Amino acid sequence: MSAAAAGSGTVAELGEFGLIAAVTARLAQGGDVLLGPGDDAAVLAAPDGRVVVSTDVLVETQHFRRDWSSGQDVGAKAAAQNLADIAAMGAVPTALVVGLAAPAELPAEWALALADGLAEEAALVGASVVGGDVVRSPALITVAVTALGTLRGHPPLTRSGARPGDIVAVAGRLGWAAAGLAVLRRGFRSPRALVGAHRRPEPPYAAGPEAARLGATSLVDVSDGLVQDLGHVARASGVRIGLAGSAFDVAAPLRDTAAALGVDPLGWVLGGGEDHALAGTFPPGVDLPEGWRVVGRVLDEPPRRGEDGVLVDGQPWERGGFDHFAG
Amino acid sequence: MSAAAAGSGTVAELGEFGLIAAVTARLAQGGDVLLGPGDDAAVLAAPDGRVVVSTDVLVETQHFRRDWSSGQDVGAKAAAQNLADIAAMGAVPTALVVGLAAPAELPAEWALALADGLAEEAALVGASVVGGDVVRSPALITVAVTALGTLRGHPPLTRSGARPGDIVAVAGRLGWAAAGLAVLRRGFRSPRALVGAHRRPEPPYAAGPEAARLGATSLVDVSDGLVQDLGHVARASGVRIGLAGSAFDVAAPLRDTAAALGVDPLGWVLGGGEDHALAGTFPPGVDLPEGWRVVGRVLDEPPRRGEDGVLVDGQPWERGGFDHFAG
Repeated sequence: MSAAAAGSGTVAELGEFGLIAAVTARLAQGGDVLLGPGDDAAVLAAPDGRVVVSTDVLVETQHFRRDWSSGQDVGAKAAAQNLADIAAMGAVPTALVVGLAAPAELPAEWALALADGLAEEAALVGASVVGGDVVRSPALITVAVTALGTLRGHPPLTRSGARPGDIVAVAGRLGWAAAGLAVLRRGFRSPRALVGAHRRPEPPYAAGPEAARLGATSLVDVSDGLVQDLGHVARASGVRIGLAGSAFDVAAPLRDTAAALGVDPLGWVLGGGEDHALAGTFPPGVDLPEGWRVVGRVLDEPPRRGEDGVLVDGQPWERGGFDHFAG
Repeated sequence: MSAAAAGSGTVAELGEFGLIAAVTARLAQGGDVLLGPGDDAAVLAAPDGRVVVSTDVLVETQHFRRDWSSGQDVGAKAAAQNLADIAAMGAVPTALVVGLAAPAELPAEWALALADGLAEEAALVGASVVGGDVVRSPALITVAVTALGTLRGHPPLTRSGARPGDIVAVAGRLGWAAAGLAVLRRGFRSPRALVGAHRRPEPPYAAGPEAARLGATSLVDVSDGLVQDLGHVARASGVRIGLAGSAFDVAAPLRDTAAALGVDPLGWVLGGGEDHALAGTFPPGVDLPEGWRVVGRVLDEPPRRGEDGVLVDGQPWERGGFDHFAG
């Protein structure tokens, strides 16, 4: 199967095995891969005798639109949100497997671009796409990605370890993807930095293992909104978390776009998901390197029944995060 | 969230987090699970420093129909086909993660039954459901499962190790699920044994690690049809495989149903997928235990260009297996 032949026509014309062969030919395999794509299963190294695993699903119209995002964008985004989950355990991602359900008339080129996007994003952290499945779907595209990773001897950073007095810090962007989506929904294609953040998030992958080295007591991927995701930490740890609104640096594109649209940019920063920032809690004396911003503190009080467990400037914060069935 | 509350209403009424909580409460965690559901990722033991991974996607209308299969059936089937891929490497499954895209109006009961089916099938081999994702889909249900497993120190059984002179043997049922589907498509609900085989395959999981101990030179999961799947072994190994039609024991329900429908039951046996039998090649002197049936031999000739590489009684076999985009 030549790349030219694979790139023309629909996935149905290329066929299941033709598509798999064309995709596989594009995938480089890293050092952790003991047996790559093409068999019933792949085999990966798990050097410290443990493996970290997480899975996420993206559905066309719910999580992406083909007129807003290219196949490559969707691949990169699907990879990013899974790789960020691995980083949020303090682990280093090693591999992805991918399930694609696609309508027969999908251009093969789109599916190959998806594979390229997945592989490119994985390569940023030294991970490989080691396997997958392609099946026919009657209408929309569904992309299901599972990421694996290694803790390199560290204990996993869970959501339940936050302790009163810990500081709360964030690595990565907040609100950019939500602002980009707001712009696209209003029919605009710029500012490019925000629209680009919606299309391809830039999670701070290295901050995950770095947090483990720094002695973080908890770490979480910000996928549904900072307040909501820190709420998981608060409830799992049996504490309240206090954030300071003034601690957030609202970047110029967010500020300017919020002013143009007549909204409060802090809504995007505190409630916007999909940037896949990492939010963690650290012992008070920690010396945080560049890339981390202190935004609050773990309080010496348990969460109240029915609340998120996160206060902003001492008050419960109104706007919620993202529920996939309410969305 | 009580089980009663979780079982009534739709997934939208229960909400993403309510559904996850209700599902998680039903999932027992086995000894290989170091950190179970509820965090950004799960952590599993990988005792020999390697992990086996495979993924498969099922789409409503393509792979199951809700009027033919219960949620529990679909869960069991989704688990089975992934667990069988792990067994086909000679490995023991340890865990599943599951992505579910479902319409908002899906009864929560169906989603919980799906989780029960996944967990029940996983428990047959000592594996646990350790994580997942649920998202909204506009119309149909998509279930994406990823299975992990351990080789327990053995090398993986790939498709490329078959050698001239090896015997070819099969463990598990062939053609039952295909016959069951043929019956359902004609509007019948019996014979129950065949319809049941379509709804919930019974892969011979233990035969995978057993084949590794017996010194198998290759092993494959029969998911698309024996001739097609052994064709992968033939081409990967650079050999032709000869099967003997008379070696297959066509069981009574297959024989009787084929007679009633006026078809050749060998079509189901050689071309039917979804039973997830295991087909392997073994050195000539091997002493195969009960459960294995010798059905052919690896020939001392390379596959010809454009052919499957599998002969039945010395002839290429006409009916092909299953292409997911032609299906």
